[in-house]
Amino acid sequence: MRIALIVEYEGADFSGSQFQLNTRTVQGELETAAATIFGEKSGRISLASRTDSGVHAFGQVASLDVETRLSNEEMRHAMNGNLPSDLCVKLVKLVPANFDPRRNAVAREYRYAINDGPTHSPIRRRREYYVNRRLDVTAMADAARNFTGVHDFASFAASTAHPVSTVRHVESATVTRDTEDRIAFDIRANAFVRQQIRRMVAALIAVGNGSKNEDWIVSLINHPRRDSASQNAPPHGLTLMRVEYPTDLSLTLNPVVA
Amino acid sequence: MRIALIVEYEGADFSGSQFQLNTRTVQGELETAAATIFGEKSGRISLASRTDSGVHAFGQVASLDVETRLSNEEMRHAMNGNLPSDLCVKLVKLVPANFDPRRNAVAREYRYAINDGPTHSPIRRRREYYVNRRLDVTAMADAARNFTGVHDFASFAASTAHPVSTVRHVESATVTRDTEDRIAFDIRANAFVRQQIRRMVAALIAVGNGSKNEDWIVSLINHPRRDSASQNAPPHGLTLMRVEYPTDLSLTLNPVVA
Repeated sequence: MRIALIVEYEGADFSGSQFQLNTRTVQGELETAAATIFGEKSGRISLASRTDSGVHAFGQVASLDVETRLSNEEMRHAMNGNLPSDLCVKLVKLVPANFDPRRNAVAREYRYAINDGPTHSPIRRRREYYVNRRLDVTAMADAARNFTGVHDFASFAASTAHPVSTVRHVESATVTRDTEDRIAFDIRANAFVRQQIRRMVAALIAVGNGSKNEDWIVSLINHPRRDSASQNAPPHGLTLMRVEYPTDLSLTLNPVVA
Repeated sequence: MRIALIVEYEGADFSGSQFQLNTRTVQGELETAAATIFGEKSGRISLASRTDSGVHAFGQVASLDVETRLSNEEMRHAMNGNLPSDLCVKLVKLVPANFDPRRNAVAREYRYAINDGPTHSPIRRRREYYVNRRLDVTAMADAARNFTGVHDFASFAASTAHPVSTVRHVESATVTRDTEDRIAFDIRANAFVRQQIRRMVAALIAVGNGSKNEDWIVSLINHPRRDSASQNAPPHGLTLMRVEYPTDLSLTLNPVVA
């Protein structure tokens, strides 16, 4: 039978989500735990979204085929008993045998946190990018609005990326001042080009500090050209908040702000 | 001249706030940075509240005597350039020469965070205590209300503590469900007995899980006896949010929830 897992992790000590030999990854840790519980025959784990090294997740979704008599709760408990403290399974659910966490996802929601206060925050430093100047949130919010809709986001894709389509549907993109010294960029799309969000954030910061303007963002979207938005905000500000599925699968957990 | 500093730190890697030889402390790191900037003659740093090893602070207050021509902003910048990433100075302010951060404080506010969800949170794990069962927040809130007022809190003091008065004035003590799986205990008092808050939290958790009731809390308060509330919740759930001074000193920063 196939199960889906909702997974939370702190990205700092992972070399990203996808399995790599001799490196600590989210997929690797999950597969090691699953093999301990379900035996070596337990298959590979699939993940809904690839997250880069350093990127966090409150609601990553994974799937796995298992043969077991354990209940969903017992599976969750057993997995967490075999996982390190920076990774845990929040929910286990039976899904149809053809469930694919990546292909069946209808939307992904990410949040990027920026600290633009007078100093960095020791307590929050692992999850927000500290920029050493005050940013114009209104200008950033206005610029971010242009990301919404169906666009070719090639400008926000690395030049080395595979020559696949870079057209995506961004449903919403908002910039808000979350607390006195923290700005949140929230974006929801059907899917993302690799590094798209971190490049969008770097571009928005350039708008927020006055070195670029909204017209530049518009031209990046209207004239898609690989790598034209080449700056990349650091990964630790980024968190995958949740992945959404058709309602009959109801696989979401509410994101909980940390 | 005397300056006051508002200081933020993540407590995990400090052996508490107060200076100790050959151990990493908040006071020690601040004094080392100050000596680099202001010279070896810069005096000792005083702190408003003692925090135990592992306890965090958004708004600890310190004071120091310096001879310098640097502006407040330059002092802050210079301090932060000489401090590790888990400690920073958020504000520098000139204060009267007789300012004493501990004696002049009129109130301290602390928050203790408890996760009572089905699993721990990898992302939030450094700042909340994970209890492995659902707690009754209403019962905890009702019990916590008894802490308010002027009471002898000896029951929440270690038996080994110095034989000084354990009478304190708790201005407010509230328990609220902050998010679906997180409970916040917020307490404000003129001052606290050592470990008072962590012992209160352990007592409230006993109420929340049904092993004790509100009457027991009332009897701990009405019959003060050293160490009767001997359980101690772990330090990493506790954060010193702010220290308040008479308005003419206006030394507060708004607490920012991480």
